[in-house]
Amino acid sequence: MKDLQDADSHRAPSAAGGAPHGDSGRPVSELRERIWRIIFLSDTAAGKAFDIALLVMIGLSVVVLMLESVEPLRQSYGRWFRILEWASTILFTLEYVTRLAVCARPWRYARSFFGIVDVVAIVPSYLELILPGGQYLLVVRVLRLMRMFRVLKMAHHVSEGSVLLNALAASRRKISVFMLSVTVLVFVEGTAMYLLEGQANPGFSSIPAAIYWAIVTLTTVGYGDVTPVTFFGKVMASIIMLTGFGILAVPTGIVASEMSRAAAPQQPTDERTCAECGTGGHIRRARHCHQCGTVLQA
Amino acid sequence: MKDLQDADSHRAPSAAGGAPHGDSGRPVSELRERIWRIIFLSDTAAGKAFDIALLVMIGLSVVVLMLESVEPLRQSYGRWFRILEWASTILFTLEYVTRLAVCARPWRYARSFFGIVDVVAIVPSYLELILPGGQYLLVVRVLRLMRMFRVLKMAHHVSEGSVLLNALAASRRKISVFMLSVTVLVFVEGTAMYLLEGQANPGFSSIPAAIYWAIVTLTTVGYGDVTPVTFFGKVMASIIMLTGFGILAVPTGIVASEMSRAAAPQQPTDERTCAECGTGGHIRRARHCHQCGTVLQA
Amino acid sequence: MKDLQDADSHRAPSAAGGAPHGDSGRPVSELRERIWRIIFLSDTAAGKAFDIALLVMIGLSVVVLMLESVEPLRQSYGRWFRILEWASTILFTLEYVTRLAVCARPWRYARSFFGIVDVVAIVPSYLELILPGGQYLLVVRVLRLMRMFRVLKMAHHVSEGSVLLNALAASRRKISVFMLSVTVLVFVEGTAMYLLEGQANPGFSSIPAAIYWAIVTLTTVGYGDVTPVTFFGKVMASIIMLTGFGILAVPTGIVASEMSRAAAPQQPTDERTCAECGTGGHIRRARHCHQCGTVLQA
Amino acid sequence: MKDLQDADSHRAPSAAGGAPHGDSGRPVSELRERIWRIIFLSDTAAGKAFDIALLVMIGLSVVVLMLESVEPLRQSYGRWFRILEWASTILFTLEYVTRLAVCARPWRYARSFFGIVDVVAIVPSYLELILPGGQYLLVVRVLRLMRMFRVLKMAHHVSEGSVLLNALAASRRKISVFMLSVTVLVFVEGTAMYLLEGQANPGFSSIPAAIYWAIVTLTTVGYGDVTPVTFFGKVMASIIMLTGFGILAVPTGIVASEMSRAAAPQQPTDERTCAECGTGGHIRRARHCHQCGTVLQA
Repeated sequence: MKDLQDADSHRAPSAAGGAPHGDSGRPVSELRERIWRIIFLSDTAAGKAFDIALLVMIGLSVVVLMLESVEPLRQSYGRWFRILEWASTILFTLEYVTRLAVCARPWRYARSFFGIVDVVAIVPSYLELILPGGQYLLVVRVLRLMRMFRVLKMAHHVSEGSVLLNALAASRRKISVFMLSVTVLVFVEGTAMYLLEGQANPGFSSIPAAIYWAIVTLTTVGYGDVTPVTFFGKVMASIIMLTGFGILAVPTGIVASEMSRAAAPQQPTDERTCAECGTGGHIRRARHCHQCGTVLQA
Repeated sequence: MKDLQDADSHRAPSAAGGAPHGDSGRPVSELRERIWRIIFLSDTAAGKAFDIALLVMIGLSVVVLMLESVEPLRQSYGRWFRILEWASTILFTLEYVTRLAVCARPWRYARSFFGIVDVVAIVPSYLELILPGGQYLLVVRVLRLMRMFRVLKMAHHVSEGSVLLNALAASRRKISVFMLSVTVLVFVEGTAMYLLEGQANPGFSSIPAAIYWAIVTLTTVGYGDVTPVTFFGKVMASIIMLTGFGILAVPTGIVASEMSRAAAPQQPTDERTCAECGTGGHIRRARHCHQCGTVLQA
Repeated sequence: MKDLQDADSHRAPSAAGGAPHGDSGRPVSELRERIWRIIFLSDTAAGKAFDIALLVMIGLSVVVLMLESVEPLRQSYGRWFRILEWASTILFTLEYVTRLAVCARPWRYARSFFGIVDVVAIVPSYLELILPGGQYLLVVRVLRLMRMFRVLKMAHHVSEGSVLLNALAASRRKISVFMLSVTVLVFVEGTAMYLLEGQANPGFSSIPAAIYWAIVTLTTVGYGDVTPVTFFGKVMASIIMLTGFGILAVPTGIVASEMSRAAAPQQPTDERTCAECGTGGHIRRARHCHQCGTVLQA
Repeated sequence: MKDLQDADSHRAPSAAGGAPHGDSGRPVSELRERIWRIIFLSDTAAGKAFDIALLVMIGLSVVVLMLESVEPLRQSYGRWFRILEWASTILFTLEYVTRLAVCARPWRYARSFFGIVDVVAIVPSYLELILPGGQYLLVVRVLRLMRMFRVLKMAHHVSEGSVLLNALAASRRKISVFMLSVTVLVFVEGTAMYLLEGQANPGFSSIPAAIYWAIVTLTTVGYGDVTPVTFFGKVMASIIMLTGFGILAVPTGIVASEMSRAAAPQQPTDERTCAECGTGGHIRRARHCHQCGTVLQA
């Protein structure tokens, strides 16, 4: 989250270093500053237009990527798809180079969260030219959707995202205990169903298949591609479903209580103890001891 | 919510303007006031009867609209459906005109939330006479169900609705960050499944199809019209399901913590600073500085 | 909840009336008191045995009721099922009569929550002898499962149930606004899907069918008996699913915040104002004004 | 939870008993202490390596157990599976014996939570040699996955698990009332659907089948193997689905509020009363009476 929060650190060339010469020693051109303002901020008309153009480009390039996978469309418009894909890749590359150029601390930008996302958005297209079996990079190319977060960020949505991520991070131990418990549960339930239904039902012919069914059921997805057919199988399945119904409450409870805590007004206490009465646990902005009224020392 | 909350502003003719002559300059007739009381309030027997009649009319007209779409019923009773539909449209039109007539500030009513809902409930029926392809207005006609909220409103349910809407509004940023994250997730998962299953499974023959599947799975709907068939596809699907199971906790946590906060007693602080010690952040009803005991100035 | 909470009011014959003669004027027999203790309380060995016997009888009679509906079992064992059913009905009738007889205030018991449940558990069996089409009373007969709550009640589970019911009751307005909103939503979504898919897909051939689909989808049940087949239908369905995923958070948030509030320690304030400084909103056990330290008057 | 929390009580041989001779009277060998540190703790390089090796062994033995159930794999590699299975069983047995040997209080370890899990992980393999129909012990063998918790425990995850278990334990009464209510609900709904659909739909041909469907629906699993086909059946099903959608909020609300309470900062009050004014309910760290300012006595 550090990287998300110190987004402002990719500062205007003139601001970084506190001197008019910037990090590179040469005088900061006014043009460079203006371009920086357009592509990093959105407080000017040009900056907002740039953001919208960026959103459109990202959207378009992902739509092209999706449509290219539709066989009939590829046969008819494959040529156009490739042109659009390369157009967007080249534009993203130009944008990345410009960002590096106008940024006061290019290396810091390059290692930041969005700097990495920006690279990830363009590298796969070049790699596909070189590598065989490059179609697996499709998944990476879809990640360019994450660039959309950059635009949201300008609109101060990031702090909200931070709250979410912090809540998830704060509960990561509880969630990992929970996930391990769920894993044990689906393994046990899957094995039990394999023993109960394995003979009668091809959907439960092996333990891995039965575990797949248990996951589909416990998460309440319930495709129905595998369903119990014997009486005892249905009884067992009913128990599993009711368990899953109750278990669903646990992660929700974890996150909800974590978010309530994050949202609650904090009264953080500090290390000071009262010289007069020895009381500790004062709130930070306290000046007087809450026990005897003596002025607190820092 | 403004419009919902200042519902009382469609005041009795005599109350608006503070003068007995109303906005239109002519003397307020007693009849006009009585009608206003019947159709806008529900504190009289006639007012309650009107509310119930309105509920019945709305229900009936929506039932007719639904039954008309059932082919065998339309062939047998189509004529009756059209008669009932027009009867309700004309009654709603009369009601709307009456509301405008007896309301002290007709223009304000017309622009209010329920004023717009009332127009939306009648306009489509007239438009269908003129426009070709008017059957798409069906969706708009169903919106007349929203008129039912008006009756609930009389029963003071609106403030509860406001709490809900406020909680949703307060968490709109968190929810939009969440929705964008989910979108990125289903795109990535869909593309991954397309690569894993695309060859073997017609249900994953293109990325859009695979993304549709990912949405069906992540939301735990799980139709089962498209299901993985290969081993690695099932492993991937299991991971997606468990993710979706955990992710479901996030919006719930957001709304629950937001609603808890709305329900919690507030201790709002104000702008005052202590003249003696400069401390800020006093609670509103405080008279003494919580730091040095000096009386606070307003 | 009144009835659930004043369960103790079906008091021991000797306790009611505060006199040794009870309501009926005749001296309270020791036997009557002992029977009362066995069937109403569970603080004796006999009382616990009675509770367990009751649980077994209820379970058995419901199992019989279920098995009777299985065609092959009815043909083989139908005779036994009818014998068991009548045995349990007669035993429940005897129990009910005994409860009335040993209870200090029979009429109060008869009108209490569990008194009514007890009658509902036996009446349908007798009614079926008289009424034609009596098989619809099956649903009522299943309600005898509610008698199991009586045994739980003895184990002090009722107060927990009260918390649940109170939380639900406190949020009933929010929930009714939510349910009406969901209703409007599924009607609008159903109509939209009817227009999009109606031609191509027999599952959406009428608005009621499409609304049924919308409910199956929005609640994330997702049978898969009706699924969209056109491209725009799938896009629309995806939007509906993501909406439903988010909407699920709302009732959960309502109940969770309501239950948190019920569980939170209360600091109720009273009506007193400080005679010296006029401050109000003091907590009940406060003796000194929290603003100026003056002693508060009652 | 006792057993989970006093995990530290399986102390180093030298620590237990407070004397250098241990429980068995013979001098504690340094080797024994070193082995104890490796297999019970993970604060040394060897201890961490042991933990990882253990995780791998557990994972491997469960994977083997699963693959053995896949018919084609068993035919090809069945021999290898049996070798691996016995290798892991023997290693686990050796590990268990070592744990007993190096532990200061073997009997206490043997009865602890993880001691029992460790036995459960090895016993079924031996029992299968003796017992006919031993394949049902498969389910027990899968329980060796629970041994993974031991490794997590070392990483201080257990306290998180305790919070989860405590929250569930604290709400067990509410949850049991809820589960009984849900049971009554699915019995009533199932019976109603049997009456509505039983004639027309083989999926509802008996009450147990209809109850199975009601569970599948209420938990929002929705396999689609049984779906309503009549109009009134669909109406009833829609009501059941909307009910289930709302009911899902209840256990979540229970757990969320319970976890919030557990997470909330506590201000525990103590038994002291003010000698001057008699006020009780002071917070623990208070020195002065919050009512009259008199110094509190311990």
